[in-house]
Amino acid sequence: MFLTGTQRVDEQGHLTIGGCSCVDLAREFGTPLYVMDEAAVRTRCREYTSAWGEAFEKYHIAFAGKAFLNKAICKLIAQEGMWLDVASGGELYTALQAGFPPERIHMHGNNKSADEIAMALDGGVARVIVDNTRELETLNAMAMKSGKKAAIQIRVAPGIDPHTHEYISTGQVDTKFGMWITDGVIPASEGAAMQALMMAEKMEGIDLRGIHAHVGSQLFDLSCIYMSAEIMLELASAFRDASGHPLEELNIGGGLGIRYRWMERPLGIREFANELARILRAECEKLHLDMPTIQAEPGRSIVGEGGTTLYTVGSMKSIPNVREYICVDGGLADNPRPQLYDAKYEAILANKADKKPVRIYAVAGKHCETDVLIHEAPLPDVEPGDVLAVLSTGAYNQSMASNYNRLPRPACVFVQDGRARLVTRRETYEDMMLTEVG
Amino acid sequence: MFLTGTQRVDEQGHLTIGGCSCVDLAREFGTPLYVMDEAAVRTRCREYTSAWGEAFEKYHIAFAGKAFLNKAICKLIAQEGMWLDVASGGELYTALQAGFPPERIHMHGNNKSADEIAMALDGGVARVIVDNTRELETLNAMAMKSGKKAAIQIRVAPGIDPHTHEYISTGQVDTKFGMWITDGVIPASEGAAMQALMMAEKMEGIDLRGIHAHVGSQLFDLSCIYMSAEIMLELASAFRDASGHPLEELNIGGGLGIRYRWMERPLGIREFANELARILRAECEKLHLDMPTIQAEPGRSIVGEGGTTLYTVGSMKSIPNVREYICVDGGLADNPRPQLYDAKYEAILANKADKKPVRIYAVAGKHCETDVLIHEAPLPDVEPGDVLAVLSTGAYNQSMASNYNRLPRPACVFVQDGRARLVTRRETYEDMMLTEVG
Repeated sequence: MFLTGTQRVDEQGHLTIGGCSCVDLAREFGTPLYVMDEAAVRTRCREYTSAWGEAFEKYHIAFAGKAFLNKAICKLIAQEGMWLDVASGGELYTALQAGFPPERIHMHGNNKSADEIAMALDGGVARVIVDNTRELETLNAMAMKSGKKAAIQIRVAPGIDPHTHEYISTGQVDTKFGMWITDGVIPASEGAAMQALMMAEKMEGIDLRGIHAHVGSQLFDLSCIYMSAEIMLELASAFRDASGHPLEELNIGGGLGIRYRWMERPLGIREFANELARILRAECEKLHLDMPTIQAEPGRSIVGEGGTTLYTVGSMKSIPNVREYICVDGGLADNPRPQLYDAKYEAILANKADKKPVRIYAVAGKHCETDVLIHEAPLPDVEPGDVLAVLSTGAYNQSMASNYNRLPRPACVFVQDGRARLVTRRETYEDMMLTEVG
Repeated sequence: MFLTGTQRVDEQGHLTIGGCSCVDLAREFGTPLYVMDEAAVRTRCREYTSAWGEAFEKYHIAFAGKAFLNKAICKLIAQEGMWLDVASGGELYTALQAGFPPERIHMHGNNKSADEIAMALDGGVARVIVDNTRELETLNAMAMKSGKKAAIQIRVAPGIDPHTHEYISTGQVDTKFGMWITDGVIPASEGAAMQALMMAEKMEGIDLRGIHAHVGSQLFDLSCIYMSAEIMLELASAFRDASGHPLEELNIGGGLGIRYRWMERPLGIREFANELARILRAECEKLHLDMPTIQAEPGRSIVGEGGTTLYTVGSMKSIPNVREYICVDGGLADNPRPQLYDAKYEAILANKADKKPVRIYAVAGKHCETDVLIHEAPLPDVEPGDVLAVLSTGAYNQSMASNYNRLPRPACVFVQDGRARLVTRRETYEDMMLTEVG
């Protein structure tokens, strides 16, 4: 067991987050409940901002909204002075509805529709991260038509295997994302990335700012990010040599791993920034490049550990000589990560947080499917009605939630200084039929 | 490539379903679009009903709503005279809103809340499939309080490994579902299932009708279902000997596999019914039991092949010496099965359905993640704007869809006799913010 952010155990032996008792939260808002530790999230934002600020002369940090996006987090991110990365028209719409300043928004997507490109252009986003030449041409034509110049970065595939789950590996050569620098046969000077840069540079509607790559997620060994950054600088140098223009911006994407289990020790944000700066400075010196503006797009490492999901225990099943099951009132629909990525979580019995574990339980959900949230959770004696807190669910839980088995999606509260603020209300059965017209 | 249901290729070389051109459907309703072949679904319903009717004296077939549930399918299933299996309060709510007769509804769930149990009782559902003794006690107490008698089946775990994906394996001993008959050490006469049956039999608010088991999904070898049915009959026999009462109903669940790829050859519904009948008759004779009412709960094999998802091709990416990617305007959020279960699909280029494949493409989605829908799809030359039809998406696509990356969930049309009927309208960006209150 580990506690993270503002999590504490109070004198009643109850888990508290942001000064709020999880037992009270479960009673007041019902379960399953996403609880977001506002102070923990802000602390991570500030760690990034200060570490990057110390390590680099020019930088900005954009929160990767896909990890957890709603109006409340947009407002928080805006208050923290950070930028925001959105990956679809829907994400951009949410950000704009929240009043997030478009001049701090990155627009991503490997297959942006014409509508989404127009939305980004009309919305005045800071950067479009262009994935492919077809998009580049569409964006250029639209920009010229409206007399604008779209500031862009070109997404490149550095050709690196990040050694993480294949679904969240994105920087290898064999990827749908971005443009390949080299395929191992054709040199970088003739690769798709270089061609796109040369093309963009000449376009009237395009203001080419830099290049972007994202190699993978939930990384504990960041050497693949460092390597990717070096490869990107080499590309920038080759482009400078070919075009005579340096690239101003280097966007390294996200990927920093977080702590899902007590034995995991992710690298600190400051160590990450310092090591990256050291490597980039050396590489820039070698290549006779000025240090570009260094951008990062962390998602999980901003919100992941700040999120906790509260469930109520219902059915319990003791299968002698086999396993002890406890079943909670959520599962696959509110947290698909165990089944999608074989993700491992830890849990605390929120109403018995001061008790020692006495048994290994399997924590299962309530779906019509073998949705085991945690295969082996050491817990004190569990009884129906207990409140189970699953830790580090802030990223890719609410944002990936479904209505499988027509379970309403959970409510979400932000907690801080003893106050809980409802940010997303629980869906109702009626809500789930909103789009049924026949 | 294979065609299923009413799929044809018209004289323009376009794929049609239910007499509707997929190219026209994509234009009229947009993409991604779930297209349901109404005639194909009705045909499967009738195949089940007639095969079961010929094989068994007493039977009923309940459609497993979790595979695909909305008001339209509830109405269709009701018209076909079938029963319906729901697995949550939300599914029951949908069925009742659609006017589905409650006296033909089975209520499932491994962790039903008190609210859900009350809803089932108040709604007058035909059977509650009771998962565990705690639920049994709650249901009995509620029924007695309201002067009712709840007709139930006890869900049992037959202790069989169905050799399918672990997430959809549900009949093994090590499962969250139902009550174990034997753990391999403790005999069936003392197992949890027998204890629950003996307990239920004595309860004033409970009308014990039978037993239920579901061993797994997407099965091509049904021997595990036959074996499960035999084990269930043995339990029924032991219970008759212990209590003096025979069980009237045997519910074998679902599990029949469907065709996702041309080389797959699932067993026919008639062969399934006949083989099951042969085995059950022999076993009943051996155990001196009257043949009970035989119930089945097919989901995927009713709606799976009837569903087709239409996408529009956008970005394309040729990585020399590596792979050809085409990207469509949906992906993980509308069909999580490739990533959840490593599911394999086939696709047809709907606007070039008469052209021969010339190349192997990887079909990727538009999510910020490596969401490859089909790793190797042989297709004719693909161009942006082409309409791609992914086959056999009727089950566990719409019902498991999410808003990941804030992509609106697709519309759904039912097609038949050249007419397309909008059943679910496409979500809007505004819809996705419905529950945001802070």
